[in-house]
Amino acid sequence: MAMTGVLRPGHAQLRVLDMDESVKFYTDVMGLVETGRDASGRVYFKTRAERDHNSIVLRRADRAGLDFFAYKVLNKATLEELDGKLKAYGVVTERIPAGEMLETGERVRFQIPTGHTIELYAEKTDVGNGMTYNDPEVDVVDGKGIRPIRMDHALLYGGDIDGSRKLFEEVLGFNLVERVKLEDGATDLAVWLTCSAKAHDLAMVRHSEDNKLHHVAFQLASWEQVLRAADIMSINRVSIDIGPTRHGITQGTTIYFFDPSGNRLETFCGGYDHYPDNHPITWSWEHVGRGIFYHDRKLNPAFLSVLT
Amino acid sequence: MAMTGVLRPGHAQLRVLDMDESVKFYTDVMGLVETGRDASGRVYFKTRAERDHNSIVLRRADRAGLDFFAYKVLNKATLEELDGKLKAYGVVTERIPAGEMLETGERVRFQIPTGHTIELYAEKTDVGNGMTYNDPEVDVVDGKGIRPIRMDHALLYGGDIDGSRKLFEEVLGFNLVERVKLEDGATDLAVWLTCSAKAHDLAMVRHSEDNKLHHVAFQLASWEQVLRAADIMSINRVSIDIGPTRHGITQGTTIYFFDPSGNRLETFCGGYDHYPDNHPITWSWEHVGRGIFYHDRKLNPAFLSVLT
Amino acid sequence: MAMTGVLRPGHAQLRVLDMDESVKFYTDVMGLVETGRDASGRVYFKTRAERDHNSIVLRRADRAGLDFFAYKVLNKATLEELDGKLKAYGVVTERIPAGEMLETGERVRFQIPTGHTIELYAEKTDVGNGMTYNDPEVDVVDGKGIRPIRMDHALLYGGDIDGSRKLFEEVLGFNLVERVKLEDGATDLAVWLTCSAKAHDLAMVRHSEDNKLHHVAFQLASWEQVLRAADIMSINRVSIDIGPTRHGITQGTTIYFFDPSGNRLETFCGGYDHYPDNHPITWSWEHVGRGIFYHDRKLNPAFLSVLT
Amino acid sequence: MAMTGVLRPGHAQLRVLDMDESVKFYTDVMGLVETGRDASGRVYFKTRAERDHNSIVLRRADRAGLDFFAYKVLNKATLEELDGKLKAYGVVTERIPAGEMLETGERVRFQIPTGHTIELYAEKTDVGNGMTYNDPEVDVVDGKGIRPIRMDHALLYGGDIDGSRKLFEEVLGFNLVERVKLEDGATDLAVWLTCSAKAHDLAMVRHSEDNKLHHVAFQLASWEQVLRAADIMSINRVSIDIGPTRHGITQGTTIYFFDPSGNRLETFCGGYDHYPDNHPITWSWEHVGRGIFYHDRKLNPAFLSVLT
Repeated sequence: MAMTGVLRPGHAQLRVLDMDESVKFYTDVMGLVETGRDASGRVYFKTRAERDHNSIVLRRADRAGLDFFAYKVLNKATLEELDGKLKAYGVVTERIPAGEMLETGERVRFQIPTGHTIELYAEKTDVGNGMTYNDPEVDVVDGKGIRPIRMDHALLYGGDIDGSRKLFEEVLGFNLVERVKLEDGATDLAVWLTCSAKAHDLAMVRHSEDNKLHHVAFQLASWEQVLRAADIMSINRVSIDIGPTRHGITQGTTIYFFDPSGNRLETFCGGYDHYPDNHPITWSWEHVGRGIFYHDRKLNPAFLSVLT
Repeated sequence: MAMTGVLRPGHAQLRVLDMDESVKFYTDVMGLVETGRDASGRVYFKTRAERDHNSIVLRRADRAGLDFFAYKVLNKATLEELDGKLKAYGVVTERIPAGEMLETGERVRFQIPTGHTIELYAEKTDVGNGMTYNDPEVDVVDGKGIRPIRMDHALLYGGDIDGSRKLFEEVLGFNLVERVKLEDGATDLAVWLTCSAKAHDLAMVRHSEDNKLHHVAFQLASWEQVLRAADIMSINRVSIDIGPTRHGITQGTTIYFFDPSGNRLETFCGGYDHYPDNHPITWSWEHVGRGIFYHDRKLNPAFLSVLT
Repeated sequence: MAMTGVLRPGHAQLRVLDMDESVKFYTDVMGLVETGRDASGRVYFKTRAERDHNSIVLRRADRAGLDFFAYKVLNKATLEELDGKLKAYGVVTERIPAGEMLETGERVRFQIPTGHTIELYAEKTDVGNGMTYNDPEVDVVDGKGIRPIRMDHALLYGGDIDGSRKLFEEVLGFNLVERVKLEDGATDLAVWLTCSAKAHDLAMVRHSEDNKLHHVAFQLASWEQVLRAADIMSINRVSIDIGPTRHGITQGTTIYFFDPSGNRLETFCGGYDHYPDNHPITWSWEHVGRGIFYHDRKLNPAFLSVLT
Repeated sequence: MAMTGVLRPGHAQLRVLDMDESVKFYTDVMGLVETGRDASGRVYFKTRAERDHNSIVLRRADRAGLDFFAYKVLNKATLEELDGKLKAYGVVTERIPAGEMLETGERVRFQIPTGHTIELYAEKTDVGNGMTYNDPEVDVVDGKGIRPIRMDHALLYGGDIDGSRKLFEEVLGFNLVERVKLEDGATDLAVWLTCSAKAHDLAMVRHSEDNKLHHVAFQLASWEQVLRAADIMSINRVSIDIGPTRHGITQGTTIYFFDPSGNRLETFCGGYDHYPDNHPITWSWEHVGRGIFYHDRKLNPAFLSVLT
């Protein structure tokens, strides 16, 4: 089959400092839909257009950041197969039983060399997007908040991005789309990987500390929706890191901003299609600024330093 | 791997009645780039953003229409594997040697039950899109014509769309995205299939005559580019079938129009992502008008009858 | 002063057949804000962005159509001056006392040669647009309905459009922006007039019957908002006449559609600026189709015949 | 009449350090059309959509900046009348004979209290915009460069902005649209004025030095064209000051950037309509950052200091 194995980013569990404030932010500003709360106090959200029960899960903690990032795989057989491949590759995997997260099947959890916890799962209840499977309507923006289309990707910071990249490429079938080289012209500063034909389903930046989150991204439908998102952020006094602007890498348009706990989020739009027969694009250190922020043509100070 | 097998629509060979007029149309109005002419008089085009040597090939003939529609597969091993699967499925395949089309490797050619000729191939020379693989720029519209991003999909008309759909699903790994039922509520009038996460890489409509083309589609970047395309069509007095409008099916925005030989083309934008775990959407006969043309909510007379 | 005299379209009083159904339509589909009801049962609306108390007034009647269309003038002195100029020109004017319409000052009412009732007024209460006059926010679309920016213009049908045009030009200071000639090359089929730098604040088409309404138009902010409007119309099964498309005349983008009583409305976007030193543009009968509907390049049958 | 007196910004004469480099920039990057050169070496430009012969005139000099900024008035009688009003107000005016600038009639030149030279004129040859006055086409972007619609406004820096504002209001009929107050809540830091229904035809900021230019602005058609403009700037390594972003004041979208001589330019889009009956909007010192740059919500250091 053409699309098999790992399908797409599925859920991200984020740590937040104040749950009430965070729920208000993800509901009223982000325009996500709250879909449930579990016994441990976690709050579940999906975008309006997503059919699966959840894509963002908030957990109250004393430190912001990412607990884990998960990919949905084609089916249970694929889950077993990938678990086997991970083990054969030398990765220790753990099974999280179905139901530990609301409306979510069994998960295979493992750590990647950059120290992040990644999960794979095959099942999450289709709770619908308000549009029927029969004779549906087109959905329009008619409610509060930014209302992204989907949780789109994450950018992770850690030490051994070569090891993490190799794992995603060799075991999970991801493809390298773009990379940025350090001044030595050899070492990767950053890599962009896809498991589909999107410009990225995961990105990683080399960093002195492991298991750090740069941002979780949400997809918007158009550049005009990016402007609307920025306006909504300002109306709500959300802290904007940068944007609206364009990335040279992926060529998508973007805003980086922060949730009330300091987790960086992105509203992302566009980006070219990438297929496995395309060569990856390589950026030299000299052009990294233009690669990251195409209009400013330089990194802003926060890009390499503000993480959770 | 996540993206394997059949990757994407690769090339369409169209019959045109007058080559000079057609070259002028595909160059000046469509904004395609002519990449070569072969000994048999065929003229090759790609969009500016496509890297492979060609996606549209024009052949002079006395009757307009589609000679064949081709998909690029991951690599030569995949080509062999799919040829084997086709034969095992009972399909007669033919090998077209590398070089028969300019800058294109060996092709596996076969007929599907609706009478169309489909090809698979693994190799086509990367001639570049004007952007480098190192430190590239963003491309902007600064030239003549519509300048689509890519050749995107085809809609074929023929009798046994059940047989053709089965072949694409079972042998080539395509997934069903949407379908329209006839008044009996059982028979498919039309089906939309994907080999990626796009809303469609192929569509088929049930029709009394085999091997007919409804349209070949080109992708545009935004609804504003759809408007620009319609303006360019009017400036050039291109015959517009319908649009700018929106499809209910795929939710993409669209214009249908005709090349000088009467081949229907489409400029298409948007459409949601589809993954293999999504259920297909089904349209009843009662709502087919809204499904095809979301704003007019009825089929225009040409949709079911004007074909090449 | 640079902008004096007649400032802009102010209010249109429309006849509707069923008030409840109409209020629901203008509120939920058009996204207008109901601002009041008077003793005679009329219901008042404004767009969210308009500051003045009302721009659309609905009156229940047994026949749809336009009771009157009004322009706001600079101030009371201007109202007196224009009343004097109208009388001097031979026009019979009537004074409607302040308060006859909610939150609206005294109006000068008169009939133009095409049989329509036009009003001028200088005062309407500023009830605000939700944004303050101090340190305001940017408004974003976050509610139900199309939510146009403003009531923008009207297109009137009647016999003596030469007489009406002359009155608007010579007494009220309007400028001719575009005109369409009949087959004789001499007689105007239609004229577009402005009292500002907009492409039109009024348009008129020659017609066998006097005092008919073709449409009242509302301004939208972008072509993407035009698409959203069309989607909202389809979701609500509003009867669409034509669009989304572009006018050659004014170059604006447009949808024509009908309220539940059959009054044609328009959502209009763009259109070039016109200043009094610009020559008017003239369309010949041969090109009128492209002038009205730039993409279809022909009049649809309803354009010249369906009126209220 | 409704639109009389001063119509619109007409031409700006800018000083540039290197004419060849500047001509290349205004042609290839800005996408302006060179319309002539005069005996004194000045080079004249218009936007593609402007009909009058020129709107930007470049003069080589050793110091960048603005020689003068001019407004077109309704006709020669208006020019005489305004000259008389200026003199009556105590302003010394000078007559520049027709032909001193190419294809431009007699100009009335005077200095305003902030030290800037302002001109009024009634005549400039209509050289056309490539579209005919009969049965025209819609123009589409199909050439190099940003290609704005029109030269739109200027922002001037100087000391006595109260005096300059009074002159524009009382003598030339401009209206105050928005203002920013200093910390004392009484003194204007900045004012935005219109002579039409645009959000601004002129803006002024209080500054310690007279006769300084902050920027000359060009109008773009859409937020998508703003993105395209930013991309073109980056491709051409144009120095971008800020943007794409939105102004709180006027609510338009914007990029500030510099020509090769260091003159700041703006590509501006949108902005609400303002009519003389609207109250001006007032911004307090506390909110000025959000007023100027709605998304960043703070002034960038260059805004108040980098001038020519």
